[in-house]
Amino acid sequence: MSKPLILVTNDDGITAPGLRALVRYMNEIGEVVVVAPDSPQSGMGHAITLDTALYSQKMKMGLENGSKMEYSCSGTPADCVKLALQEILDRRPDICISGINHGSNSSINVIYSGTMSAAIEAGIEGIPAIGFSLCDYSWNADFNAAGAAIKKIVLKALANGIPQGVVLNVNIPKLEEKNIKGIKICRQARANWKEKFDKRTNPMGKDYYWLTGEFELLDDGKDTDEWALANGYISIVPTQFDLTAHQSLVQIKKWDLNA
Amino acid sequence: MSKPLILVTNDDGITAPGLRALVRYMNEIGEVVVVAPDSPQSGMGHAITLDTALYSQKMKMGLENGSKMEYSCSGTPADCVKLALQEILDRRPDICISGINHGSNSSINVIYSGTMSAAIEAGIEGIPAIGFSLCDYSWNADFNAAGAAIKKIVLKALANGIPQGVVLNVNIPKLEEKNIKGIKICRQARANWKEKFDKRTNPMGKDYYWLTGEFELLDDGKDTDEWALANGYISIVPTQFDLTAHQSLVQIKKWDLNA
Repeated sequence: MSKPLILVTNDDGITAPGLRALVRYMNEIGEVVVVAPDSPQSGMGHAITLDTALYSQKMKMGLENGSKMEYSCSGTPADCVKLALQEILDRRPDICISGINHGSNSSINVIYSGTMSAAIEAGIEGIPAIGFSLCDYSWNADFNAAGAAIKKIVLKALANGIPQGVVLNVNIPKLEEKNIKGIKICRQARANWKEKFDKRTNPMGKDYYWLTGEFELLDDGKDTDEWALANGYISIVPTQFDLTAHQSLVQIKKWDLNA
Repeated sequence: MSKPLILVTNDDGITAPGLRALVRYMNEIGEVVVVAPDSPQSGMGHAITLDTALYSQKMKMGLENGSKMEYSCSGTPADCVKLALQEILDRRPDICISGINHGSNSSINVIYSGTMSAAIEAGIEGIPAIGFSLCDYSWNADFNAAGAAIKKIVLKALANGIPQGVVLNVNIPKLEEKNIKGIKICRQARANWKEKFDKRTNPMGKDYYWLTGEFELLDDGKDTDEWALANGYISIVPTQFDLTAHQSLVQIKKWDLNA
């Protein structure tokens, strides 16, 4: 039996240590092709490039790392997946793995996440997909504690399949391997960012802002990803791209808009 | 009773005719403040600006149009909403209205939509929000046919409230007003974009790509937004930002990842 073809991408860029660690782990499982942004794309959400030409470059770095092929792309994570599927790969990948993100994509962060947008793009195209994030924003974060769990989750996904219309959002607490208690299947915690804009004046006298903020958890459920992470577990949220609030259809119909 | 405060934004930029039409309609309902991108942001999904300073400029154009205040912002639609709520407005808006987008945001397009990302951002912050899109990509599209329906939907939302965790995605067919059959509450149709990359060579001899594609409907339900639009109705999809695929939690738990 041939090895599974694994498309690897991320949003921190092709040189990010989180992606290099992921390539190492995926090389133990299958044939790896990397198509990743040539520069960091954090916070890009599900952006795609419509008004700008996209460039893609075959990279040498992949070869020494053991992946079959590596390409950088000038676009967003979602662009990378589209380009990989339509132009770069000669067959459909068995799975698309995005990450390992430098920083959490739990709770409402999934909405802003370039890492998860790549996974969701693959999911829309019918390819099983998982995004992995480590709750450590440092460029030099330790990605080793997560290796065994990441491999286990990918192997289970390859063996069982992921339900249609669903991709997995996996977050890993910043802990040593021996202190990780296990893996929990969770729902997305309700939360919000309390924005603070840091207003400054540039050397030309013009005001500008830096977007900063504090994460505000609005959910005390024990079945959430935030609870799992805070209690030493890896969280997996099955995540969907049918955004319909089915439970609200009846309520909005009562507005009687055609009266 | 004071008039409702209406925050208006979009993704086509502050000068877009769709936004100008929306301002006209909202002026009939409440006190309007515009905070919108200074340049087109289509396809930006839920991007936010983390690595770049944000600039905001008070504009004169709003005054002649009857809105209370207008500000342009150098960021994405989600940035505009964050900046409006934290820095520009002196009280919370009663509702946030995004659009009128030049082009459809029905079905899977909601994922890539800057228009809807602005509405979703407001929703995350607990503010009732609606995105409006006209299924006509032309800059000179006719936004008049939709005026009465848009005002009706906003007034109903103000009167009834929108369920927590839900924003409305409204799409309007490209039809004369007399040919619009009514308003349907729908689910998001299952669909995909069949990408085609148009590969070219630049004058310096380097290959590049344009992202193009064809919309591929994968859903023949009569309860979808695509069906409504194809049959002459305005579609409203209640849209949520809890992306948890609740129906898949049990299935993924059966993977027995802690064995």
